[in-house]
Amino acid sequence: MVPRYTRPVMAAIWSPENRYRIWFEIEALACEAMAEYGAVPKEAAKVVREKGDIALAAFSDADLARIDEIEAETRHDVIAFLTWLAEKVGPESRFVHLGMTSSDVLDTCLAVQLVQATDLLLKDLDDVLAALRARAFEHKHTLTIGRSHGIHAEPTSFGLKLAGHYAEFVRNKERLEAARAEIATCAISGAVGTYAHLDPRIESYVAERLGLKPEPVSTQVIPRDRHAAYFCTLAVIASGIERLSIEVRHLQRSEVREAEEFFHPGQKGSSAMPHKRNPVLTENLTGLARLVRSAAIPALENVALWHERDISHSSVERNICPDATIGLDFALARLSGLMNKLLVYPDRMAANIESLGGVVHSGEVLLALARAGLSREDAYRIVQRNAMATWTKLGTPECRTFRENLDADPEISGRIAPDVLDAAMNSRQHLKNIDALYEKVFGEPGPAL
Amino acid sequence: MVPRYTRPVMAAIWSPENRYRIWFEIEALACEAMAEYGAVPKEAAKVVREKGDIALAAFSDADLARIDEIEAETRHDVIAFLTWLAEKVGPESRFVHLGMTSSDVLDTCLAVQLVQATDLLLKDLDDVLAALRARAFEHKHTLTIGRSHGIHAEPTSFGLKLAGHYAEFVRNKERLEAARAEIATCAISGAVGTYAHLDPRIESYVAERLGLKPEPVSTQVIPRDRHAAYFCTLAVIASGIERLSIEVRHLQRSEVREAEEFFHPGQKGSSAMPHKRNPVLTENLTGLARLVRSAAIPALENVALWHERDISHSSVERNICPDATIGLDFALARLSGLMNKLLVYPDRMAANIESLGGVVHSGEVLLALARAGLSREDAYRIVQRNAMATWTKLGTPECRTFRENLDADPEISGRIAPDVLDAAMNSRQHLKNIDALYEKVFGEPGPAL
Amino acid sequence: MVPRYTRPVMAAIWSPENRYRIWFEIEALACEAMAEYGAVPKEAAKVVREKGDIALAAFSDADLARIDEIEAETRHDVIAFLTWLAEKVGPESRFVHLGMTSSDVLDTCLAVQLVQATDLLLKDLDDVLAALRARAFEHKHTLTIGRSHGIHAEPTSFGLKLAGHYAEFVRNKERLEAARAEIATCAISGAVGTYAHLDPRIESYVAERLGLKPEPVSTQVIPRDRHAAYFCTLAVIASGIERLSIEVRHLQRSEVREAEEFFHPGQKGSSAMPHKRNPVLTENLTGLARLVRSAAIPALENVALWHERDISHSSVERNICPDATIGLDFALARLSGLMNKLLVYPDRMAANIESLGGVVHSGEVLLALARAGLSREDAYRIVQRNAMATWTKLGTPECRTFRENLDADPEISGRIAPDVLDAAMNSRQHLKNIDALYEKVFGEPGPAL
Amino acid sequence: MVPRYTRPVMAAIWSPENRYRIWFEIEALACEAMAEYGAVPKEAAKVVREKGDIALAAFSDADLARIDEIEAETRHDVIAFLTWLAEKVGPESRFVHLGMTSSDVLDTCLAVQLVQATDLLLKDLDDVLAALRARAFEHKHTLTIGRSHGIHAEPTSFGLKLAGHYAEFVRNKERLEAARAEIATCAISGAVGTYAHLDPRIESYVAERLGLKPEPVSTQVIPRDRHAAYFCTLAVIASGIERLSIEVRHLQRSEVREAEEFFHPGQKGSSAMPHKRNPVLTENLTGLARLVRSAAIPALENVALWHERDISHSSVERNICPDATIGLDFALARLSGLMNKLLVYPDRMAANIESLGGVVHSGEVLLALARAGLSREDAYRIVQRNAMATWTKLGTPECRTFRENLDADPEISGRIAPDVLDAAMNSRQHLKNIDALYEKVFGEPGPAL
Repeated sequence: MVPRYTRPVMAAIWSPENRYRIWFEIEALACEAMAEYGAVPKEAAKVVREKGDIALAAFSDADLARIDEIEAETRHDVIAFLTWLAEKVGPESRFVHLGMTSSDVLDTCLAVQLVQATDLLLKDLDDVLAALRARAFEHKHTLTIGRSHGIHAEPTSFGLKLAGHYAEFVRNKERLEAARAEIATCAISGAVGTYAHLDPRIESYVAERLGLKPEPVSTQVIPRDRHAAYFCTLAVIASGIERLSIEVRHLQRSEVREAEEFFHPGQKGSSAMPHKRNPVLTENLTGLARLVRSAAIPALENVALWHERDISHSSVERNICPDATIGLDFALARLSGLMNKLLVYPDRMAANIESLGGVVHSGEVLLALARAGLSREDAYRIVQRNAMATWTKLGTPECRTFRENLDADPEISGRIAPDVLDAAMNSRQHLKNIDALYEKVFGEPGPAL
Repeated sequence: MVPRYTRPVMAAIWSPENRYRIWFEIEALACEAMAEYGAVPKEAAKVVREKGDIALAAFSDADLARIDEIEAETRHDVIAFLTWLAEKVGPESRFVHLGMTSSDVLDTCLAVQLVQATDLLLKDLDDVLAALRARAFEHKHTLTIGRSHGIHAEPTSFGLKLAGHYAEFVRNKERLEAARAEIATCAISGAVGTYAHLDPRIESYVAERLGLKPEPVSTQVIPRDRHAAYFCTLAVIASGIERLSIEVRHLQRSEVREAEEFFHPGQKGSSAMPHKRNPVLTENLTGLARLVRSAAIPALENVALWHERDISHSSVERNICPDATIGLDFALARLSGLMNKLLVYPDRMAANIESLGGVVHSGEVLLALARAGLSREDAYRIVQRNAMATWTKLGTPECRTFRENLDADPEISGRIAPDVLDAAMNSRQHLKNIDALYEKVFGEPGPAL
Repeated sequence: MVPRYTRPVMAAIWSPENRYRIWFEIEALACEAMAEYGAVPKEAAKVVREKGDIALAAFSDADLARIDEIEAETRHDVIAFLTWLAEKVGPESRFVHLGMTSSDVLDTCLAVQLVQATDLLLKDLDDVLAALRARAFEHKHTLTIGRSHGIHAEPTSFGLKLAGHYAEFVRNKERLEAARAEIATCAISGAVGTYAHLDPRIESYVAERLGLKPEPVSTQVIPRDRHAAYFCTLAVIASGIERLSIEVRHLQRSEVREAEEFFHPGQKGSSAMPHKRNPVLTENLTGLARLVRSAAIPALENVALWHERDISHSSVERNICPDATIGLDFALARLSGLMNKLLVYPDRMAANIESLGGVVHSGEVLLALARAGLSREDAYRIVQRNAMATWTKLGTPECRTFRENLDADPEISGRIAPDVLDAAMNSRQHLKNIDALYEKVFGEPGPAL
Repeated sequence: MVPRYTRPVMAAIWSPENRYRIWFEIEALACEAMAEYGAVPKEAAKVVREKGDIALAAFSDADLARIDEIEAETRHDVIAFLTWLAEKVGPESRFVHLGMTSSDVLDTCLAVQLVQATDLLLKDLDDVLAALRARAFEHKHTLTIGRSHGIHAEPTSFGLKLAGHYAEFVRNKERLEAARAEIATCAISGAVGTYAHLDPRIESYVAERLGLKPEPVSTQVIPRDRHAAYFCTLAVIASGIERLSIEVRHLQRSEVREAEEFFHPGQKGSSAMPHKRNPVLTENLTGLARLVRSAAIPALENVALWHERDISHSSVERNICPDATIGLDFALARLSGLMNKLLVYPDRMAANIESLGGVVHSGEVLLALARAGLSREDAYRIVQRNAMATWTKLGTPECRTFRENLDADPEISGRIAPDVLDAAMNSRQHLKNIDALYEKVFGEPGPAL
């Protein structure tokens, strides 16, 4: 992920320093466990831990360079690290990595990094949820037009629109928690995963201390269906960001102008057109959603490794693990900031409801006619005719409102009282179940009017 | 593809009858070629052709059932067909398929079917191009607002918008012609493609008569990079359909209302809201675009067959070949019909240009100030300030137009003559190069004003 | 999905008959609920239920044709159904669908169909699990070579290989159960989901009787993140099928021949090469996995519907819902049958372990040398040298086994007792933790040796 | 793309320095063109060019920092660059970017960068082609078994296998040349692309000097179908890399051992198993292929920008442009090196041909029996029976070769002369058309035996 869309806190998780720190932690814990179960002298494990801790605490660019240098010869990253560690730890280093295979370190480390990344993403989701909840409560009674197919349908509450996104992000959080559990497993099982050279209790020992669960069958690698499920979950969350972003982009359209991204003082929307205030943040999020989503297919293609394992997944994961988590972290952080600062224009929302001459009340009028005894088919025909008469003349001098047309329609006259029509055309009725809806979403009815 | 989105003419290409007809044609041609080059008695080839032609001409459901019956035992579709053919042709059938392998028939047949499908799609593209050209010519001088980021930018021509889509579909046609050439190859090369049991001239003979080119190296199968490139091309075309569909959906939005899909008499937009007229055709096309596009990844995954071939591509292609071509054929046919009948509202376009109080002319005013000697930075600041003053008060009684604000700005007064501002705010100037643009796209300037 | 890969039991779920049956059930339940809560006469709801039940029980092709006929005029599928229903139910039909919108019916119906499909898939997964468990128990002590990178690594148990796939399918079942919960929701909330014309209790009533949960916020549609998560789950499962299929394809390779798909009497592997016995079922599954997976991206693209809803998801779902569930059902059913009948060749497995002259024991020898006091680096160098000496001469007369090379190596001689080397090169040691592994996977240690 | 898979030569194309250099070149050329056509003083254009050239030649990290600083305030990258340029150029800077829009610079620059990247990729493809051609010529007469479904089929030439990949990479080069033409276009058309403030000849002037073609209709942006087609082409090429990589991985399998990646002195295949020599380069390429391929979907999703443009494509392209080109460059470079150094074992290939007891000649024996007058069905049955008799006993003491079984079969005896069977079972026959095949692929028959 390019720096422009990278937050340092997430990037740090994917730094070589963090990786080597975790590698050492796994090796040191495994060594301790081996000591615990008699495979290694206790004193040796202690030396490994102490000297290693010192080396890692003092880890510098020179260490990075040294490890790279060794890898250039061995062409094997874990062996390079172990050789460097041996230089720091001394002869006791021969008790490190005993009976283990590189994947034990690599895959368990990846699990730890993904857990760290996920915890950050969960925090990001909390921020998005808080922003959506606050704005939904603020606008619980703000009437706005609901739209299906981009066409005005019936009035609704702007808060309810946000509540719908809130509910989606609650689901996204639950999905991410499930995905976290998917990838929080540990493998210390040796070559092809038989524990031939390792006591299985070592794995349990390491897993417990790292907050992971032992993998049931790790055929040298932790099976990649877990990672595929994880990246699919990120893809679903990204698509939820896209949905909310597209909503904001629609609301900011010049013809709609119901809401607007905060525009910074000094900001320039266009080099050529000084009047422009563009929804660039949500457009950016739309693109980031595509990027995060694009990790799903290669992650799925990684599942079918050959036999006990091949290493084709590695180059994929070296990229998509940081890219997708960094991209999603940035997007979620941007989204919560954006929603907190979103400029909302209730007057404009009210004006838009009325902009089609009242035809948005056709549904309730239809029901009123049905209640008055007309057949569904007749009522539909009459209402459609009068609504279209308004619709097709919008913006022309001869345009009459939907209500005027209804009042003049001989098929209606006498069948329905004016106050019934008044009620049918009152936008406030669409809020009558808003408390119940908020109760479903937030577990409380929200502020009173 | 479900029947709802299937046109019979494309479905017929993928029918078993068409497939068996092509299989026979390949076998008969190969047999004739073998006779030509001395591997088979000429008389035998003649019998195969004659009796086979009769059998295929009379092909009925009973034949289909018989082939299915044989396949149920042999579990091999080509052997089942050849056995059925032997029942029809008699003893000379032993000269059929001599030295050939099933893939010679299957892959060459698929090439023929894809060519047939592509020719239909090329015709569909011609219809789309014709519709776009006609409407672009009709609306060459229809002013409409150009939008970037969904925000009004500067005026443009509605015809030019369509001309842009026309240019894209010209590219799509060129891409599809290239993709047609990609898949129009023939393989009659035998097991693992060495021509060990076949004279290479047989392949050339068959290829020429089927309008195909001999495949350079067919390792039993025609290499699947060709098909991957083909389906990627369909995906690009589908995305072009999506772009135009989303344009129409935007134009039909209740707040925009600049264009509208034709609404059939008797059509009902919503069961609950009789006033609805929804852009359901272009929404449908948006979805179909996603479907056609979804064939690209499995087609790409099909490329890496094992060694000389495996058959994992087969189940994929049995689905995506009909699905993607049928879906695209339906979508293109729907698109040309839709564009031909699209309702366009120039008055509404004119009104929308003016709806932001003239700020859409900020770019030209900026240039005018620069020409009058202001620095770029000062000019930008002044223009932005006045445009924002209008923008932020839109719809309120105190809103002054951009022009009014400019006229009142002390930093401008005296620096720029009123007629220069008049000219800068005249939408017609945006058409000044329209002839040249049409010349680039259509090879002719289009109708005069 | 083409008929070749379709099982009738899954196809029936996606038939028009099943859809109309569910539509009626939703309408009838909603009508009953309205009666319960006073919006509709109880007697009317009873008539709707009774006459509707009779009409649906007698549903025939004539009814299908009639509905199609009405849809051809109204261009709206739900209205067409309701009109047909009115013809059957009579005047009480005016109490049907009161205040509801088409999506209430369509989306709730889709939820019911997906639940039905999922229940079938869960049953399929049980069959796969049963097959894998049975074969894993059968081959718990069958030694085979474990392979990383396609290269012989260390011995393992063939049963353990299957246990690894078992564990993956257990996860897949848990994922599918979570995905079932995702899509098992009900929406009876009216236009733009405000319950303006509907008591929210109607939704609860219908949901409960259909085994669904009420959707928290259904903005006319059930939000599509649920469906995206669902299809991503199918994609993960498909990838698990691919992994197991590729394992079988590898094992059946001519050079490996450790396992083989059952070959039917009368089956022909190749029209040109009578000796062929090809792993066509698992190749077929590999392709089907690509197909099922291809539904994930369009499902994700469906999430960002515009505002309260657009209908672009519809054409996508009309295809991917049946295609992906039918394809996965077929694949899982094929997979369980295949694994039940898989031919396994333990002798061949044993021979392959020995085929590299014993170098597969290099890891344990390395550990033995380390235990004998050599540094890790020295031990590695010595073992690698002797292993390579064997490896590079394999198949030549001068090739000596790894053991012979070790015995002749002056750097080793005297450092390590022959019986220690014997133990290090005994394949059985790799089974020493097999009981613990089975315990982890199956909750029981499996059969004793 | 992580540094591990990045070659500096490709990374440099995507550096900020290169971008700013191209931006300046576009601005300077446009300014010159404006001077040429009278919109700007010639002297001013000269100053811009001269002072700009100096500034760019001296471009340092301090300049980068300054541009970033300005962007932090304006939140607009092109305006930030222009402001920096103004600081360097002085008052004449007011003639820079006159009437242009940011996208004119951004999109034309991207075209230049993609052309630069593509030229590098074309060179990479030449290297791959050269390697494949050299090895194909070297092994033109090296017999090896052809495999379908992973099962031995009939002998072929190892050179021919490589020739097939060569032919695919020739196609890939043609595709990439077409894709280069797709993206090599220039847009200097101003806001919403009407040339309202710009003479269209400016665009032609700039385009010609940059080696680009003017875009027919650039609606502020160069239409993204071009980029979608470009990234789809990269995806097809990546899939070709995957196919060849998987071939090598198969050939290196422990049971096959027909070819092997070069193993560096000092290289360690596994930390735990010193005997390992793993095909890690081709596994790496398999993963890189997945990564490059994953850019196709977001590129396709970028096509449907809203109206004249939105900026959702930008974040996508900031990542996939460098990632996919860097990844593909690295992969192609690795591939050509790998193929040049690939260790090939003809003896092992010869041994594998014979390893199934001669059943791989069943196809030719079938034809011989047919030529001897047996019906196809009888011949198939007899050959299959004898082949299976050998196959099912492979590796057991009682196994007889296919030839021995044929000789003992009473249905054959007397019908076919031993020398005919000898000929049918001679692997050399599969090379009889090798000259013709090489002629098709390379335009010359290749070396004589």
